[in-house]
This record gives sequence, structure tokens and C-alpha cells, in this order.
Amino acid sequence: MILDLAGAEEAGLLGSGGHGFDQPAINRFMASGPEAWARVRARLTELLAEDGVADLRENVSLRERLLIPQELARMHLPIEVAGYTDFFAGRQHAFNSGSILRGPQNALTPNWPHMPIGYNGRSSTVVVSGTPVRRPLGQTRPDGVDMPLFGPSKRMDIEVEFGAIVATGTELGDTLTVAQAWEHIFGFVLLNDWSARDIQRWEGQPLGPFQAKAFATSISPWVVTRAALEPFRCSGPERDLPLLPYLHEPAEYFFDLTLEAHLTPPAGHASRIVRTNTRYLYYSAPQLLAHHAIGGCRMETGDLLGSGTISGPERGNFGCLMEQTWGGRDEVALENGGVRKFLEDGDSVTLTGWGEVDGLRIGFGRCEGQILPAPTTIGKAS
Amino acid sequence: MILDLAGAEEAGLLGSGGHGFDQPAINRFMASGPEAWARVRARLTELLAEDGVADLRENVSLRERLLIPQELARMHLPIEVAGYTDFFAGRQHAFNSGSILRGPQNALTPNWPHMPIGYNGRSSTVVVSGTPVRRPLGQTRPDGVDMPLFGPSKRMDIEVEFGAIVATGTELGDTLTVAQAWEHIFGFVLLNDWSARDIQRWEGQPLGPFQAKAFATSISPWVVTRAALEPFRCSGPERDLPLLPYLHEPAEYFFDLTLEAHLTPPAGHASRIVRTNTRYLYYSAPQLLAHHAIGGCRMETGDLLGSGTISGPERGNFGCLMEQTWGGRDEVALENGGVRKFLEDGDSVTLTGWGEVDGLRIGFGRCEGQILPAPTTIGKAS
Repeated sequence: MILDLAGAEEAGLLGSGGHGFDQPAINRFMASGPEAWARVRARLTELLAEDGVADLRENVSLRERLLIPQELARMHLPIEVAGYTDFFAGRQHAFNSGSILRGPQNALTPNWPHMPIGYNGRSSTVVVSGTPVRRPLGQTRPDGVDMPLFGPSKRMDIEVEFGAIVATGTELGDTLTVAQAWEHIFGFVLLNDWSARDIQRWEGQPLGPFQAKAFATSISPWVVTRAALEPFRCSGPERDLPLLPYLHEPAEYFFDLTLEAHLTPPAGHASRIVRTNTRYLYYSAPQLLAHHAIGGCRMETGDLLGSGTISGPERGNFGCLMEQTWGGRDEVALENGGVRKFLEDGDSVTLTGWGEVDGLRIGFGRCEGQILPAPTTIGKAS
Repeated sequence: MILDLAGAEEAGLLGSGGHGFDQPAINRFMASGPEAWARVRARLTELLAEDGVADLRENVSLRERLLIPQELARMHLPIEVAGYTDFFAGRQHAFNSGSILRGPQNALTPNWPHMPIGYNGRSSTVVVSGTPVRRPLGQTRPDGVDMPLFGPSKRMDIEVEFGAIVATGTELGDTLTVAQAWEHIFGFVLLNDWSARDIQRWEGQPLGPFQAKAFATSISPWVVTRAALEPFRCSGPERDLPLLPYLHEPAEYFFDLTLEAHLTPPAGHASRIVRTNTRYLYYSAPQLLAHHAIGGCRMETGDLLGSGTISGPERGNFGCLMEQTWGGRDEVALENGGVRKFLEDGDSVTLTGWGEVDGLRIGFGRCEGQILPAPTTIGKAS
């Protein structure tokens, strides 16, 4: 069941109100800051707990109006995305992708152990789970060919990521400590940074990923608050090298959360292709944000910070097909006998994620998308 | 004198109105499309021309209310910036910067002659001319040093660019021909993509520029419409190699416009440090937009597309200090005897630009900013 927060606010269940739950996105509520979030969270717990207050539980008509079966709800983008930044904060992923491209000796660039490497993504193409993903047209240049080709990407991939949502911003020129950055983060979503590997490989030098990542980035419709994830906090990794002081962490800012990806062919069953964990990240969300703001970049309510692909030590923990197939060399076996190197038209990919400790389980819902065929003509119909 | 469009609309001078000139930015007007722009432009010409209608000219009180001396006006960001994308569309700049980093043999990456290389910038830090620019803190690793250093950038630079403003958007999955893209562009601004070269060099691999470009991007407050620039259209460059069909241009989409940059030290005179021309670009604005949309990326009203640094053949035409000093090796001489390799605190840089043909001159106004010292502490004051 889903609680209708706009209705709850209107019915006077959430105190003085003014949280903006009647808006299409939760940006106004996020901007109201940690004290307001805590008050609303406490009140919701009180309203929904078995041993809580009677205001909702014992008012049948109100309860029936405000509690909506999930299957009757259509999910929307939970936030108005201001900026979308994608990082490269998983060590195993950085090592694997560097190894595939440059060999294991030069897998990590020298800067990698010193800072969260990231790039600005395209916020206009962040979409909610369920939005179909059209295979992009673009330029590629296969090995051994002189001139680039133009056409649909042949190497469509996923990236299993964890997205942090920035709730309160900074002014131009401001910086944040890591501890302050933590307070600016409202919560987290599942994030699939769909990638066209063949386009990425050809366009990527010298300015990084652009069209290879610009056709869709899917997020789950539920923002799981930082407060709800408290039970799953854990320590970070051992550091290859000491970090500069501005990235020091005064507390544990990592999470122990399982993430999975399942692939479902057009007429087939779901096969699990990835099982990984957010604790495999090397840089925490507040480190990403503190680094993002260190030069004075203005951060905004609704900024989305992707972790980058999260890969663990074994092949089944690798968070994208490029790694699982080692650059397209190997195949991933599906149940029922199919195989994949990259995604085919009609394939659906679903990310799920959850934390579980002492019988408490908190899930992230689903983040899914189905691949549609590329357009066959160029240009808007007039 | 500046015509107050909101006042003119309210006074009924602009027909049925509804253009949204009372809004803080012109996005609503831009979204109304080329026919509406043409109607308003024709009407404004009629109102302001010596031989035009009398509605404004002969109504003294209205004229005095609506025509405001420039020196009394405070300029604001003309558009609400949706996405900011910066390209690398000047051949001489790409060649120079590649030569400085990798030598002249490998100056251009193989993809460069085939597509406009670009990256997503940070739209939240696009600021209007006059906004001070704080020197960023960040990581750098000078040559011969093992571990990175942290502190203020020592290599602050400008980039003289031409910015195209996207007026009407596309839906996710749509593509645009180059001719269609031209119709989606409302106008142009001067753009200074302030850059921290030492941060850029250390962070740039493998994902491209990030914090080196995220502290400020200045634009001029006047959007000069595409229609106003018609007299300055010119043909594009000869192509090194044939372009793929989706980038073919059915018409002349380049402009012959002079751009200059002047540097003014804290207590000194302005010295011209750059004189270049938009005709030195290799890819036109509609080619940038058509490439941007080719993978289905949703384009939005208010997207800002920077050309990248515009450099001409001679040193005085190079559009940034990195090129003018050849990576900090040489010095740029200022009038009054000073020199610069990169910008010092207190320096102001002003971009200007204009077209001139047959006695007609159209200017872009100014795009300026002064460098403030870096912050001395990290974190928001609590």
C-alpha cells in the first residue's frame, strides 16, 4: 500500500503542512532540510505503526482514501532532477574497465585513488522506472575500420548504480566538508545508467562520455531516505593511499545493501545477471558531494549523484555486461538456454535492491526499462 | 537605451501579448517558436524604427517609461539554463591543445574530424556577465610530484566561446536534422568558460573535464537573435574528411563575427589579449545540436551549447591563455609592461563581439568577470 502524502497533508495529518506534497516532485520538501524530514518521518511512523496514534488507523474512510494499493498507482519521477552527475566510485569497476581498455598494468588512472572521478551527465534524460529505452543511433568505429559507421548501437549495456539525491544546495563559491555533505543528502535510489559501449569507445577521447550515456538513465520511483538506511551503515574500504584531508570521513558513510539486476528477454523468464553490494564502493555519497562542491560549484536541490557501476570481486558481482563479458569476449548465460553479450531489442532489465539486518528488511522497489528498436529515420516528422 | 519588453507588453504594444516578458527569463517566449519570434521582432522594428509607427515614438510618457538608459539597468541571466553543454568545435583550438598535451603528431583525436566532440557542463554555475569568479580549490599534481596537492588553482584561464541558445526542445528518442536544428536555435551569446588548467590536467582522465570547469561559466546578458545575425552568415570551413550524412548542412550556418577578450589587472588598463572570429569554427551550432540529439537525448528550452574555445591561425587569435602561452611556457604581454601566464586575483576579463557589414554593426554587449581569491577554509560557516 502507498500512503498518499498530499492527501495526508490536506487532511491535516502532517501538522502545519506546507511540505509541498501536492507538487509533482518532492523537491520543496527536500529543500526544507533535515529537521523537517525528521518531523515528517516521526509523524508518519506514528500514523502507520501498529502501536502508533489512532488518527489514521481508526478513521476507516480516511484510511481507505489515503492508502492506495501499489498496483493501482502509476509511478512518476520522484524528484525534479536539477543536475545529474555520474561518478566512477567503484574500485573493481574502474579496475575492470581500465583492464579491458588498457590492460591490467594501467587499469586505474593515477588520479583514481585520490578523488572521486566523475562527469556531468544529462539531467533531461533521467527517467522513471518503466520508461522504455530507445536504442540510440550514433557513430561507432569498430576495430580495423578506418572510417566511422553510423547506425544503431550494437553494444547496449546497463550500469548497476546507487544514486544519491541532494536535498539542500550551496551557493556559488561555497564548499562543504564531508560531514556537512552528509546532511545535504536526502536519500537514495536505484539507478541504471544505460550505456552504448560502441558509441562510448569512439567518442570518449578526450572529453569523456557524451552521447553514449545521453539517451536514458533510469531511476527507481521511491527515494529511500538516509534516515531509513541508518541500520545498514557500514565502514568504508581500506584506502590504497591516504586521502587528502578534504575527503576525510569523520563517520561511517557506506551502506551494506544488496543490488541485483535481472534480464528478461522478449519472450522469456527473468535471469539474474548481477548481484552486487553498495559496500563495494570506494567513495561514499558525501565524499562525492564534498568533492563536487570543492571548487565552488553551486549544488542544487534535486541534484542526482550516481555512484558509477558497482562491481564486486567475482564475475557474478560485476555490475555491467561489458565487465561480465569482458568487453564482449565472453557470453552471459540466461536461464532457458539463451545467452547475451549485450542487450537485444525487447530485452527488459530490472534492478532491485534491499538491506536486511536482524529481521528488518528495507527495499528500493524496482528500476526497470525495456529496449526499443532504434529509430529508422532521422529528424522530427513535420 | 533598453526597451522594457514587459512594460511594452503590458501597455498593449506587442499585440495580444502572452509572451511571458514579465518572467525573470525569456524561456517562455523562446518556447513559443520561430513564428512568434518573427512577429515580435517585426513589431519591435516597427515601434523603434525612425520611419515606423507612432505608437511609442509619439507617446512621450510611455516612451520615457519604457526606454531605460543602459547605465540604470542591472542585467540578469537572460535565460533559465536547462542543460549546459560545451563543445570542442574549433579546429585550431583542438589542434593547439592536443599539441600542447600530446605533441603535433597526435594533436587531433581520430574522432575529431567526424563529429562535434562535447561534454555536459554544469548548468547551475552559468552566471551572467559581471558576476565575480572565485578561484577554485582543488587537486592538482604538478610534473615530477608523486602525490597530488590541494589548494587554489594556479592556472586560471579563460575560453572565448560563442554560445547557442536552444529555444524549442525535443522529446526523448527524437532526432533532428541539421536543418531542423537550425530552427530550434533562438540566438547566441558570448560565453567565457573559465577553466582551471592545473585541475583539468590532473582530473581529466578518463572521464573528461569536471571540477576544472564547474566553478563559473559567464555569458553576456543579451541574447542576439538568429534573425538579427542573418547579415553575417557565411560558409563553413573546408572539411578534412567528408562528414557523415546526419551532419550534412543544406545551407550556410556559420557566422562572420569578431570576438575579442581584454584583460584588466586590478589597478591597470585593459589590454586586448584575444581577437578571433566565429568563422574559425569547424562545426556550426545546428551541427552541434543535431549531434546532441542524434541518440535521442531530450533537448530542452534553455539548453546552452558552447562552441568551445575559438582560435584562429595566429597566436593573437588563440582564444585562451593556455594556447597563447603554449601551456604556460611563454608570457602574454599587457599594455603598461605587465605580463601574464594565467590569471591573477583581481584580474578582470571582458569578452566583446560584433558583426559588421555594409555599415551595419550588431554587437553582443559585454561578458565580463573578475577573479576573486580562493576561499581560505573549507565548509559552510554554521
